[in-house]
Amino acid sequence: MPSTAPSSNRFERRRAATRRALVRAAREILADTDDTSVSIQAIAERADVGFGSFYNHFESKAELFDAAVADALEEFGQAFDDQLRGVEDPAELVAAGFRLSARMADSHPELMQVVRRRGLAHLHSDLGLAPRARRDVERGIASGRFAAVDPVVAVSALGGALLALVELRFARPDIDGTAAAVDMAGMTLRMLGLPPDEADEVARRPLPVVA
Amino acid sequence: MPSTAPSSNRFERRRAATRRALVRAAREILADTDDTSVSIQAIAERADVGFGSFYNHFESKAELFDAAVADALEEFGQAFDDQLRGVEDPAELVAAGFRLSARMADSHPELMQVVRRRGLAHLHSDLGLAPRARRDVERGIASGRFAAVDPVVAVSALGGALLALVELRFARPDIDGTAAAVDMAGMTLRMLGLPPDEADEVARRPLPVVA
Repeated sequence: MPSTAPSSNRFERRRAATRRALVRAAREILADTDDTSVSIQAIAERADVGFGSFYNHFESKAELFDAAVADALEEFGQAFDDQLRGVEDPAELVAAGFRLSARMADSHPELMQVVRRRGLAHLHSDLGLAPRARRDVERGIASGRFAAVDPVVAVSALGGALLALVELRFARPDIDGTAAAVDMAGMTLRMLGLPPDEADEVARRPLPVVA
Repeated sequence: MPSTAPSSNRFERRRAATRRALVRAAREILADTDDTSVSIQAIAERADVGFGSFYNHFESKAELFDAAVADALEEFGQAFDDQLRGVEDPAELVAAGFRLSARMADSHPELMQVVRRRGLAHLHSDLGLAPRARRDVERGIASGRFAAVDPVVAVSALGGALLALVELRFARPDIDGTAAAVDMAGMTLRMLGLPPDEADEVARRPLPVVA
């Protein structure tokens, strides 16, 4: 890329890396303790960046923590897009939401702790799984796959149940998380109007294998 | 009660009043901002008690906030016992849980903000609505009113959906809370195996009138 000044590139790369380090540190703090009373100095140290550079990126600690939650929710939503590409049945997508979330509590504990602790306030935001669930529920209602429920209430119930499943995974590691996720997927599909047998069949379908 | 020394009574009463004032202040802080980084000094001032008396009751700020959450959850559970005395049908009890919670978000906002912010971590505790929901779900399964679902997973789904309804009430006051609660009650009864018509009928039954 001969037309771009290398020094500007380097500056931008370093700037982006500093922001990423701060967001990463804030995510870790949310996941570890959810104690946001920690000082900006301590966050900068944890991120291994200079204290002064904090204010090049964020006006306040609250703004950093908001960015950290948004970052986690977007990573969460993106994981579903990556894993469920090509799945068309809204019922299968809802069931996969529960099953992949339980799996991710084991494979991505830091991410899922942030979801667990901050997800409720984002059930109707444009971040993470919420807009995807809204889209799938509305499609399912329009096609007749789901009963004619109120989509806002249905997304609330699905989102709350999903957060409770994540909570269960962390609070009760003795319980079989895979079986609990399949059970909850089946129950929520009945809630959306699928006949019991069909709900259980869809909840048990093999999840897509990502290439 | 001639055998009790009046001075000891007075001391105990004052001691209990101090503890109540501290718990009340902590509940208000949780409801207002959920910012537990506030100092013990500031909590004591809010409670209008001396700073020193804090440590006669609590070893740490965390212990006080735990007591405040437990106090709110018990008040929440007790409200259901008071209002649903005599109701025997587990399906009606589940539906009433959603409808009374939505109503209490309006009538008891301080209490319900604490439930909203701290309830998820208590979905499987022995406080508040959780043990009552477990009892009602188990009775409903045993009597055949509900399908043979896993009670732990069912209570998770119900509790998560209920918290999402409370969240919806506070975050989206423009939405009709009564209608949303009836819709969610009907959906969760389908989830528990009631046929759609019956689920909707139970969800719409008049709530008991408290004498």
